Formats: sequence, structure tokens, C-alpha cells
Amino acid sequence: MMGKKKEKGTLIVLSGPSGVGKSTVIAELLSERKDIYFSVSFTTRQPRVGEEDGVNYNFVAREEFERMIANDELLEYAEYVHNYYGTSLRVIREKLDAGIDVLLDIEVQGAAKVRAKCADAVCIFIVPPSFEELSRRLHRRATDSEEVIQGRLQKAREEYREIPNYDYLVVNDKVSDAAAEIISILTAEGCRTKNRMNLVEGV
Amino acid sequence: MMGKKKEKGTLIVLSGPSGVGKSTVIAELLSERKDIYFSVSFTTRQPRVGEEDGVNYNFVAREEFERMIANDELLEYAEYVHNYYGTSLRVIREKLDAGIDVLLDIEVQGAAKVRAKCADAVCIFIVPPSFEELSRRLHRRATDSEEVIQGRLQKAREEYREIPNYDYLVVNDKVSDAAAEIISILTAEGCRTKNRMNLVEGV
Repeated sequence: MMGKKKEKGTLIVLSGPSGVGKSTVIAELLSERKDIYFSVSFTTRQPRVGEEDGVNYNFVAREEFERMIANDELLEYAEYVHNYYGTSLRVIREKLDAGIDVLLDIEVQGAAKVRAKCADAVCIFIVPPSFEELSRRLHRRATDSEEVIQGRLQKAREEYREIPNYDYLVVNDKVSDAAAEIISILTAEGCRTKNRMNLVEGV
Repeated sequence: MMGKKKEKGTLIVLSGPSGVGKSTVIAELLSERKDIYFSVSFTTRQPRVGEEDGVNYNFVAREEFERMIANDELLEYAEYVHNYYGTSLRVIREKLDAGIDVLLDIEVQGAAKVRAKCADAVCIFIVPPSFEELSRRLHRRATDSEEVIQGRLQKAREEYREIPNYDYLVVNDKVSDAAAEIISILTAEGCRTKNRMNLVEGV
């Protein structure tokens, strides 16, 4: 029954502080669960080295982003460290209606907006094993100035206050373990009675 | 983090109609997750061929069972096809307090009583792929008369009405798939934010 087509896809919201290794976990997750549609966010920030337009983000100009806001084309959007980040509504709706699970990588403000609109969303917060380790990872990445890194660490502490609003908490100690836990969460969510009553005869 | 000791064990309740193959699924589950404590129920029914006292059930006389009821030693008990089935409270409490997950195999009346006493219990209902298949399995088992089999099928239909009260629904088509789904459910439950806030610094 594990591959059985669902009537409606699950909307999965993944949040976690900058530097926690979310992109790596997501890459591992998507390589194991190729049936998941990863919703590529729109952003006005500059691509980092190795980031690809349409893969990591849809990189757009500030004017284009503000046009999407004005046209109500976004499920959620937020401004974060002076850049916009947002999620297109239309594509997500199509996928969910086709029974496909959709994965969103969004920060805590956006996640709160999605939760308000989609009560069925499954929200997962990823943390590092410790703040010390988060600081190490941000320094190792070597893409940001010390000032930006300190800003990200401060931001992480604020984001942590939102954790109780998430359904699940995953610690990214080892990427493969974190991805495996998320896969288990998705399998379990698919087993929820409310999502499976169509499999029961005569009820 | 997957092996991280929990502060408190999860109480897992497994129900499903007679003949669904619950014992086989449980055996597979326990061979994969040796850390789970399987609570052996007490019953007054006769052992079936191959069943062992203290392993499948603690087989006791009706008088002994009624003494346990009188002494309030049971978490739940029920009478089912003229026999008592029940669960000892003391052992379960000790295991949960020691951070060990406890698995209960109980029918729907008992499960309702456990739910009333333990709001945190994770309740899983196992169904066969169809009633036709359930009938086939009961006949294949060849331990019961046709009359008893018909009684069990009728009972199954009544038990199905309780399914909406269960958190998860697992279809036992292939034993290994059913066991894998239950393992995913237990992993996911361990990832619930409320069970993991102790892993988060400074919150």
C-alpha cells in the first residue's frame, strides 16, 4: 500500500536557521523520494556560488517580485535580511490536487502564513545539534561576512521561538539520518486515518 | 539523533480484526525494533497450536483473571467471544517511565479504555486489503469452526466502526510493508516537537 496514490497530496513545510544544512537535507530527501515536488521559491537576493536559477530559487528583480505581490500570486512572502522570498500559489495547488506531495522550504514568517491558510500542512523545523555547531557551519560556508554571520545567529535565536508551532523537530547531526527521519514523517502522515479512509470497505 | 534516549516512552496501541495477521506483523516489527517492549496480554482463552504461555499471552484461569479485576491490576480488560483479555498496568508504567516504547495488542474496547486513560497513546488499526481476503485468511488458519469464523467476520465489521478513533491506519497486504509503515509511524512520533523540546538549546 506504500505506493498507493493518494486522493490529495500533503503540503510539507520545512524551516530552519540559515546554515543548518537544509539544502543538503532536501537534496538527500528528494533523491530518495523522487515523487515529491519541491516548490522552488522566488527571491530577490543574489545567487550564491553554485546556485542555479529555477533550481535553488527563481531569482527575480525586486520590481518583478512586487508585481507578483500586487497580483496576489503568492501563497506567502516575507522580507528577510533586505530581500524578498515567496511561494507561488498556482503550481502548488495543482500538484496537491493531483495527489502529489509538495515540499516548501520557507522561513518562519512564511510558514506561519502557510499554516494559517492550510491547516493540513505538515510543518517540520530543522535544528543543528547546537548553536556552536551552527556558528561553525556558517563560518565554514565562507560566503558571508562576520557581520552577516552574527546577524544570522541572532536571527536563528529568534526563529527558535517559533519551534513550538511546528509539528515535528528534526536535528541535522548527520544528513542521512535527518533525511531518513523526514521520510518517516511523510510515510507516517500518509498513514493517518483521515488520509486513508478511502481504503476501508463498507465504512 | 535517531537512537537518542527519550525522556518518556511512547505507548503504542495496535488493534485489528481477528485473522488480519497482527501477530505476524508484530513479530516482524519486534525483530526490527528490539528496543520496543511488547506487553503480553492476559487471557482466559485456550492457547492455539504453537502459542506459548508468556509469549503470545499469559494464559490464566477465569478465577485468576477475576481476581486481577477485583484488585484493580489492569489498565484495561474486555470480554470477547466469551473470554477475558486484559493488560497489566504496573509493568507498562515502569517501562514508559524508563523511556521505553511499549506496544499493546488489544481489541477495540480495550483500546478505547486506554485512550481514555492515556491521551498520548498512539493508536494504530490494521486492516486486511479486503473482507474477502480476511475471510480467506481465517479459513486458511483452519483453527476455528465455520460458525466461529462467521462470528469473527461479523465482529470485524463492528470493529471497523471504531477506525475513525485511531490515529493511523495500516493495510496488511504484505507483512514487511505493514511493519515498515508502523516503524515509520514510531519514528515520526519520536520526532514530534512536544517529545523533543529537550533537544533544543535556550528555548
